[in-house]
Amino acid sequence: VSDRSTPSAEWCRPRSSVGSLADYLSECRELVLAEIEQIVPSRRARTGGLYELMLDYPLRPAKALRPALCIATCRALGGQLESVVRSAAVLELYHNAFLIHDDVEDGSLKRRQEQTLHRKHGVPVAVNVGDGMLALTMKPLLENMELIGVGPALRILLAIADMARETAEGQALELEWVQSCNWVLTDRDYFWMVVKKSAWYSFIVPIAVGAIAAGASDDDSRRLRLFARRLGVAFQIEDDVLNLAADESVYGKECSGDLWEGKRTLLLLHALRSATHIERERAVEILSRPRPPELDRSTPAAVAARVIDNGNRPCKTVADVLFLRDLIDRYHSLSYAQQIALRWARLAVATLDGMGEALPDSVHRHFLYSVSEFVTERDR
Amino acid sequence: VSDRSTPSAEWCRPRSSVGSLADYLSECRELVLAEIEQIVPSRRARTGGLYELMLDYPLRPAKALRPALCIATCRALGGQLESVVRSAAVLELYHNAFLIHDDVEDGSLKRRQEQTLHRKHGVPVAVNVGDGMLALTMKPLLENMELIGVGPALRILLAIADMARETAEGQALELEWVQSCNWVLTDRDYFWMVVKKSAWYSFIVPIAVGAIAAGASDDDSRRLRLFARRLGVAFQIEDDVLNLAADESVYGKECSGDLWEGKRTLLLLHALRSATHIERERAVEILSRPRPPELDRSTPAAVAARVIDNGNRPCKTVADVLFLRDLIDRYHSLSYAQQIALRWARLAVATLDGMGEALPDSVHRHFLYSVSEFVTERDR
Repeated sequence: VSDRSTPSAEWCRPRSSVGSLADYLSECRELVLAEIEQIVPSRRARTGGLYELMLDYPLRPAKALRPALCIATCRALGGQLESVVRSAAVLELYHNAFLIHDDVEDGSLKRRQEQTLHRKHGVPVAVNVGDGMLALTMKPLLENMELIGVGPALRILLAIADMARETAEGQALELEWVQSCNWVLTDRDYFWMVVKKSAWYSFIVPIAVGAIAAGASDDDSRRLRLFARRLGVAFQIEDDVLNLAADESVYGKECSGDLWEGKRTLLLLHALRSATHIERERAVEILSRPRPPELDRSTPAAVAARVIDNGNRPCKTVADVLFLRDLIDRYHSLSYAQQIALRWARLAVATLDGMGEALPDSVHRHFLYSVSEFVTERDR
Repeated sequence: VSDRSTPSAEWCRPRSSVGSLADYLSECRELVLAEIEQIVPSRRARTGGLYELMLDYPLRPAKALRPALCIATCRALGGQLESVVRSAAVLELYHNAFLIHDDVEDGSLKRRQEQTLHRKHGVPVAVNVGDGMLALTMKPLLENMELIGVGPALRILLAIADMARETAEGQALELEWVQSCNWVLTDRDYFWMVVKKSAWYSFIVPIAVGAIAAGASDDDSRRLRLFARRLGVAFQIEDDVLNLAADESVYGKECSGDLWEGKRTLLLLHALRSATHIERERAVEILSRPRPPELDRSTPAAVAARVIDNGNRPCKTVADVLFLRDLIDRYHSLSYAQQIALRWARLAVATLDGMGEALPDSVHRHFLYSVSEFVTERDR
């Protein structure tokens, strides 16, 4: 990452690159956390604990993939670490602010092995901490002007403004589907939402910012954005798969949380499309119901009987969620989703391959390739 | 406001200036709403209703005081309307985004005579709409560079970043007091919170942005910020008074909402300080309880008996809130607060007086004076 990093033998063997991938991520994370600790004010008197809480999510164990993508792109194009590290830190700060608000909006229980911020401190505090983090992003982005020049600094600001807008649109689209109980959705609808809701801020803009910081040509920037978009879709589909397939202690989020929350995922949409009329009707009825209040989730009542939520609506039961999982298994929807993720990841790799000399061999270029492999191989 | 506005005879008679004040506000509001409708994208396909909802709060009847202060300051200093109107619109957009999140955080029921956004569409949608509005503010502020030059445009961006940070700090401070049931607060604690939580984004930055857009000297800017800070404190104290004293249909918010919510206001802190030990203990016990779920508020149960909230805690009753109001009446806390508001408003006026030739006589200067009078006279 920094100039101290030299390509190790590991990086030359893609099939065994996980160790190096982890090292690269971890080195980027260290660099970016140090920046974040500079961006978040250290004066703490009369600020109601705001700044301590801003560091809660960033300091929990996490891959910090977004800043690593940003740094790797800049370095792979020949840019300097100093030109990009602060912008990468801003992206990580944004990501964590989004996560806080997203957890509130989805009513999520766990994030990175711990309780979500709103469960620990209440929705009011969580909404405000997210807002405060967003407020802190402007100044370092303006300081970029001295570092990389006015033009590139402005392009980064605009890219981040676009990102915030696209993410809100994607979130709005998903919330509208939830509120209107809309389950008649095509894979195309899903891709549209996922590009907006997660690919923009997890892949497209981190990689675009890396390219801007390196002073990439328009053509290279365009190709890198295409790579990012394809990788982003692949990544989110894999994430949906992991949510169902993985062990909670490894994955860090609640297991089958997507089913409890009634999330529109590619694999669930596939199962619903493949199901019989009767199965689909029952599944949609289950999905329209709220999740039970957390304390009731493991009681015998929640397994089979009806638990009632605050709005007097019957909640999903454990048996309901098992029915959904059965449906997904019966119609091989996990493998359907994985196939599509694989196809997108391969398209992403092909885009990177097409960049030729613009992306000379380096540890950073290897990292970009390894992330593409990681997406499709992390659960095998 | 625009060059069509000329000083009317009304403005020369401060005691009867309310008509002109309303006209000035209303003209600014029209200008700013037209800008907001340009800033909010008109394409609406596949955006989940996000952009319609962004216009909900701004289009509800409102004074639009903040953009008027911004425009009046710029114009009073000799600046052009075109230099400031877009920044004023951004401030109004920010204000409405804050209101949406603030209503979520405070659990408020009404805003501008209607249900709050989260009551109409749920907390997830409200949090996301606020985030989306914040995302839209960056681009118009960057476009300022062509309009007023790079230097002033950057200073406006930094002022708005500071504003967002200060507001989050103020909100965090208040939420911390709520969570720790802290009622042992001095007037100084209250001023500190109020300057951060409301004066910054309602007065200090609107007026600072107007001054930057007009190209004001450092000295004039400094004095205008002092004016804004003093006026902001006066304004918030008056707002607290109105929340208790005013008629719901005129005020637009729920009546005595601050008492139901358990807000730290100057007048309530005064009543608690003045009360006997027994009264204070009962008041603090009442204030520590949550507000009842809205539907139960007008039922006989809520008047005297205990209503239980979702967390199994006993709620405030109508009798409880009447007890708090009695305390406030008994210790003349409304008049105490009004005296202090008056003192701050007079200090604000004195600051403006001290600006002499920098602020020549104009309809805009009259507006700034009238707002100061409005603060202390609107409920008489």
